[in-house]
Amino acid sequence: MDAASRRFTLTIACPDRVGIVAAVSGFLAEHGGWILEASHHSDHGSDTFFMRHEILAESLALSLDEFRERFAGIAGPFGMTWAISDSAVKKRLVVLVSRQDHCLYDLLYRWRSQDFAFDIPVVISNHEDLRAFVEWHGIPFVHVPVPAQDKEPAFRRILELYHEHRGDAMVLARYMQVLPGWMCEALPSRILNIHHSFLPSFAGAKPYHQAYRRGVKLIGATCHYVTAQLDEGPIIEQDVIRIDHGDGVEDLVRYGRDIEKAVLARGVRYHVEDRVLLHGHRSVVFK
Amino acid sequence: MDAASRRFTLTIACPDRVGIVAAVSGFLAEHGGWILEASHHSDHGSDTFFMRHEILAESLALSLDEFRERFAGIAGPFGMTWAISDSAVKKRLVVLVSRQDHCLYDLLYRWRSQDFAFDIPVVISNHEDLRAFVEWHGIPFVHVPVPAQDKEPAFRRILELYHEHRGDAMVLARYMQVLPGWMCEALPSRILNIHHSFLPSFAGAKPYHQAYRRGVKLIGATCHYVTAQLDEGPIIEQDVIRIDHGDGVEDLVRYGRDIEKAVLARGVRYHVEDRVLLHGHRSVVFK
Amino acid sequence: MDAASRRFTLTIACPDRVGIVAAVSGFLAEHGGWILEASHHSDHGSDTFFMRHEILAESLALSLDEFRERFAGIAGPFGMTWAISDSAVKKRLVVLVSRQDHCLYDLLYRWRSQDFAFDIPVVISNHEDLRAFVEWHGIPFVHVPVPAQDKEPAFRRILELYHEHRGDAMVLARYMQVLPGWMCEALPSRILNIHHSFLPSFAGAKPYHQAYRRGVKLIGATCHYVTAQLDEGPIIEQDVIRIDHGDGVEDLVRYGRDIEKAVLARGVRYHVEDRVLLHGHRSVVFK
Amino acid sequence: MDAASRRFTLTIACPDRVGIVAAVSGFLAEHGGWILEASHHSDHGSDTFFMRHEILAESLALSLDEFRERFAGIAGPFGMTWAISDSAVKKRLVVLVSRQDHCLYDLLYRWRSQDFAFDIPVVISNHEDLRAFVEWHGIPFVHVPVPAQDKEPAFRRILELYHEHRGDAMVLARYMQVLPGWMCEALPSRILNIHHSFLPSFAGAKPYHQAYRRGVKLIGATCHYVTAQLDEGPIIEQDVIRIDHGDGVEDLVRYGRDIEKAVLARGVRYHVEDRVLLHGHRSVVFK
Repeated sequence: MDAASRRFTLTIACPDRVGIVAAVSGFLAEHGGWILEASHHSDHGSDTFFMRHEILAESLALSLDEFRERFAGIAGPFGMTWAISDSAVKKRLVVLVSRQDHCLYDLLYRWRSQDFAFDIPVVISNHEDLRAFVEWHGIPFVHVPVPAQDKEPAFRRILELYHEHRGDAMVLARYMQVLPGWMCEALPSRILNIHHSFLPSFAGAKPYHQAYRRGVKLIGATCHYVTAQLDEGPIIEQDVIRIDHGDGVEDLVRYGRDIEKAVLARGVRYHVEDRVLLHGHRSVVFK
Repeated sequence: MDAASRRFTLTIACPDRVGIVAAVSGFLAEHGGWILEASHHSDHGSDTFFMRHEILAESLALSLDEFRERFAGIAGPFGMTWAISDSAVKKRLVVLVSRQDHCLYDLLYRWRSQDFAFDIPVVISNHEDLRAFVEWHGIPFVHVPVPAQDKEPAFRRILELYHEHRGDAMVLARYMQVLPGWMCEALPSRILNIHHSFLPSFAGAKPYHQAYRRGVKLIGATCHYVTAQLDEGPIIEQDVIRIDHGDGVEDLVRYGRDIEKAVLARGVRYHVEDRVLLHGHRSVVFK
Repeated sequence: MDAASRRFTLTIACPDRVGIVAAVSGFLAEHGGWILEASHHSDHGSDTFFMRHEILAESLALSLDEFRERFAGIAGPFGMTWAISDSAVKKRLVVLVSRQDHCLYDLLYRWRSQDFAFDIPVVISNHEDLRAFVEWHGIPFVHVPVPAQDKEPAFRRILELYHEHRGDAMVLARYMQVLPGWMCEALPSRILNIHHSFLPSFAGAKPYHQAYRRGVKLIGATCHYVTAQLDEGPIIEQDVIRIDHGDGVEDLVRYGRDIEKAVLARGVRYHVEDRVLLHGHRSVVFK
Repeated sequence: MDAASRRFTLTIACPDRVGIVAAVSGFLAEHGGWILEASHHSDHGSDTFFMRHEILAESLALSLDEFRERFAGIAGPFGMTWAISDSAVKKRLVVLVSRQDHCLYDLLYRWRSQDFAFDIPVVISNHEDLRAFVEWHGIPFVHVPVPAQDKEPAFRRILELYHEHRGDAMVLARYMQVLPGWMCEALPSRILNIHHSFLPSFAGAKPYHQAYRRGVKLIGATCHYVTAQLDEGPIIEQDVIRIDHGDGVEDLVRYGRDIEKAVLARGVRYHVEDRVLLHGHRSVVFK
């Protein structure tokens, strides 16, 4: 990454009041910060304010550590929840897969082509099938079987691997296991899933079969954060495609793959670019 | 309608087997029938076959009555459910509205501009608000109040009006009353509703509020046939539009109007052009 | 409009540098301005910065006149081009139509239902056809014939009517006359047109015929500002719909109407809500 | 492929008249042919009729050779151009690439996962970059440099390779060379290209730069057959995605990749499933 494109991303949520933008932009200006991108959202129902700034790193007269120290003086009085990240430090996504490979193919393509900036330190699977393809990309592949009669050790091992590989987030790329509640709670807003329906329709198992039986005219996919409540976590991104009466379940599965990988890729990008701020059960996504 | 564009539309459903198309197209060819449009669907799960033909009326050496008489000889052996309609006879849609006028505006525009062929013999409402606009178009408007404490007489009156005006179908253009089960059963596959959500998500009341609370990224609308099970009837058409975190409930309502009227218009067109064939709970829509 | 929802909209364009946001938001905060919505765009190619703020009117300790006077002190040093508008003052759109009424129906519906805030002081047409429908809405209708052999007096009369009715913008709602160059230049960024193609494809006459001949799989519509170069003005909004080989030119015309009115409505809304800032030949649209 | 899913696909184009469907479906019924899918199109402007049938192979009492021999007796009198293909024989697509790999990744994924049925006997490139990825899939990779000063021998070599590998079609998956006219003419309706714009907008070089400069609000991609007229061949499939003022040329390139690969994949599928029939410069696509 060349200096000219390195950026710091500052995200903020706080109670809404007059003067927030003035305080933040005043601070940035004082230290020479060139704003490349800025987004605001004022949530009228809850009187909460959300901001995201991308600042040209080389313009700022402060190191990140100095920024953090000094900005605390602004953040405190306004009651801000905030974070700042550095585009030179790629987020590390631990990817979990089972046997289906369409989302994995897509993520590996985007990683290899640097479609957007992220790293994959390890791919974990409950099956061996995709080892060769992952390893061809030079990425470690770990097989963690999840035996039906005793799944807990497997999930403990997965969480260990996540920490060993210094994961910043976990991506369930059509991973066909339900994570235990304690694991979801251990990584809040850090586990992204792709569900193969337009939630809240067709939560749970076999959504394409459900969609076929109901006779819907569009099918969709949903990228969401995983919480202890299955398919109930905050939605990051969704999309749909048109089907018709001539399409059987197997066609829905086939066409669905294209929308699943597209929605997951967008959701992952929004997450790694710090575009997603949570507001209770809802998400603010600054595109 | 000039002779050159008058067409007969033949729709057929029957158990699937070899020879159906040959028998039907052989019959049409024998009587000079020029096929303008033909659609087939073979439902693998149920072994049911569906067909729709548009035949140039002036090419056929038979009157409609003769057609009906002779075609029965084909239909019987194949166990066909079938119908034939004449584009010179416009379908008569009895429209029910409450106070919201976006779907009504849209339907009246399409009727007046002959966007597709249909008539509106009467508009019925539980409020007086839209009388002047309807009457300006030269269409009778009947106010049938639906008092909360005793709704049955109102619905009996509406069904009477439907028959008095020789209705072919009833369109609920954001009519804010739930029809009684006996009325739904009296007009099977003849009552079209527009529901302001992407069913089966957010059935029932206040779907935009439900959608807002769930934090979905797309909202939709569904045109479906009304059955005694609220919001459970066969779906004819659906569509969605993208929203974002900046949109409050009132924005969803506002943007939703555009998708509601578009989806209702398409659903109504498919119905009046005999493009919708039912297959249990699902619809075959030959576009 | 109640006090709680009245808002001032401030739009700014200026050379990009550090400190713009700080200066503007500092000024707003100093005078109590509650920011409801804020959008920024930094154009990297040209080093130009664009901003739009919606400020709660009742929060501001300044009248609009005082705001204008004092804000000049900020705007000058930064070289800002800027404007501030008051949502309590509806923009007055002079609508021009010919015989086709789909865009007119749609605009009148949105005006009557207050889908978004604007007024229509007069509708002008080169034909009498739509007089009754316009007048039913209580809006004056003026017939200005445009004789092929001498069009100039007609356009001079139209511009007079625009000024007599204190127009803020002119909307060509499928007006089938090409405006003279002097008229386009008299109202820069004030005349909105809907072109029935996805520009730059199929500029000029009969775009649906052109689209049919080329065999495209999607057709579209474009809302743009009118300049002296036909169909070359800055684009505000575009959209498309899918067609197929079964659709003849007349079907394209029919389906196209739906996309034309939707695109025009969005373009008009962006304009009246001061969401469109021009950047040479391109538009910044803060949605 | 199991017997139960093997199918023959019969495509026909001929002058329109009464009796075509009767003759074809009569012939099929006579030989026991079970119709799985049937599509018709009657082109009113040219009085040409198009048909496509998928017939269950095991239901037919004729071998393909017998079918061809006997069907000639029907085809002759009606002046049919026709073909029949066997789903058990996969079409062989010779893929040409340069350095960009997004379309290649997508095609290899679809080939490997049998998303739809086709083979890739060889990938040819004017660069070495993608050799390892192609060979990992077990597919031969041939480097054919195309020196600027003398390109003809390269294209002759490519055509030789196409024939050596018994190609059924050639797919230009972002191949950055213009094919010579004689090569386009040698393989009419056999070379598919993906152009990175919504044609006819932005034909030729650097379409994303052109789109950026014009300020369009949607960008697209077009899959078309290659003819001697650059970017003028019959269109098979198109699609678009929304962009906004914040997107620079590099963003258009990035988002464009997703739409390019999706459009190319659909176009290739339509081609290999014999869903595309040409009608002069336009295509009939039976989806």
